[in-house]
Amino acid sequence: MKIYGDTTSGNCLKIKFTTDFLRMPYTWVFISALDNETKTPEFLKKSIMGQIPVIELDDGRTLAQSNAIIRYLARGTVLLPDDPWTQAKVDEWLFWEQYSHEPYIAVCRFHLLYKKQPKETRDPVRVERGEQALDLMNDHLARSPFLVGDILTIADIALLAYTRVAHEGGFDLDGRPHVRKWIAASERQLKLA
Amino acid sequence: MKIYGDTTSGNCLKIKFTTDFLRMPYTWVFISALDNETKTPEFLKKSIMGQIPVIELDDGRTLAQSNAIIRYLARGTVLLPDDPWTQAKVDEWLFWEQYSHEPYIAVCRFHLLYKKQPKETRDPVRVERGEQALDLMNDHLARSPFLVGDILTIADIALLAYTRVAHEGGFDLDGRPHVRKWIAASERQLKLA
Repeated sequence: MKIYGDTTSGNCLKIKFTTDFLRMPYTWVFISALDNETKTPEFLKKSIMGQIPVIELDDGRTLAQSNAIIRYLARGTVLLPDDPWTQAKVDEWLFWEQYSHEPYIAVCRFHLLYKKQPKETRDPVRVERGEQALDLMNDHLARSPFLVGDILTIADIALLAYTRVAHEGGFDLDGRPHVRKWIAASERQLKLA
Repeated sequence: MKIYGDTTSGNCLKIKFTTDFLRMPYTWVFISALDNETKTPEFLKKSIMGQIPVIELDDGRTLAQSNAIIRYLARGTVLLPDDPWTQAKVDEWLFWEQYSHEPYIAVCRFHLLYKKQPKETRDPVRVERGEQALDLMNDHLARSPFLVGDILTIADIALLAYTRVAHEGGFDLDGRPHVRKWIAASERQLKLA
């Protein structure tokens, strides 16, 4: 399997965290998140969506969208229990991540880290919604060690990717002890720390 | 089963289209997308995410996120074939819809239809990305009758919800014949037209 992606992108790292944890072999093909490398005719043949990450199976089939990829790779493993309701609760977090977390936490990080913009110029709407997303996670994690019950799933991997680097987008996790504890526990299991 | 939602919201209508097609019984409980009805302490007990739609099973369990809900309801039916790769390609569109379509097409519609703002005041970035999303769909649907192969799936239901009312957000489908043909075919199967 080939993974097309940029190792500084949280969306791409979700695939690395999942495959490394599951000890799945892969070849990483570096495609920059900048420089329009995902918009070349060659790359658009792999995925019309023109975004990274993309995986390519040995038979040439390709799949885009980080959360669709980790959901596919994790089927039948401990990272995605077979029970349909548990899977539905995992999906609930996966969709929430893409709609209510990534567009705020990851985009603020992008502006600060890649575009070198000062913290004061962050979009106030994105900042407010990012803060709300982190508060929501802290409230939920006060009652549950992982996002869906007692074990690490791909829901945790999806949310971990940008939450663990939220400070790079100007967000402070000091007042969110349950998020910090969950990050530490997840990183330990994934051997990131 | 109860469905909490607003029948003018495309995200909520995805659940109605799915349950009606599958002839699943439900009680619709009207919760406005406006007026902060999703932020009351009572509603937040049903879903910490504070968004509609939410479904509540007869035993009290609740699930949020439109695409997580239709994925759960459609399991084992013609709307979500069992083959893991087909499911992965359905997921690819479900996540793309929430990240690269809904925030542009649905949000422009929200400003025009609910906030009564004139078309000229639409955010140019949202307009550009909405146009790109519709072009991408048109290119894909030139080669495939439905989003994932030859049959209607929940990927089509998820994308149909806001694409069929894209004109209410100021988007023109006249130059996108393959999108229009797909809308007509999907609406026919769902008995919406």
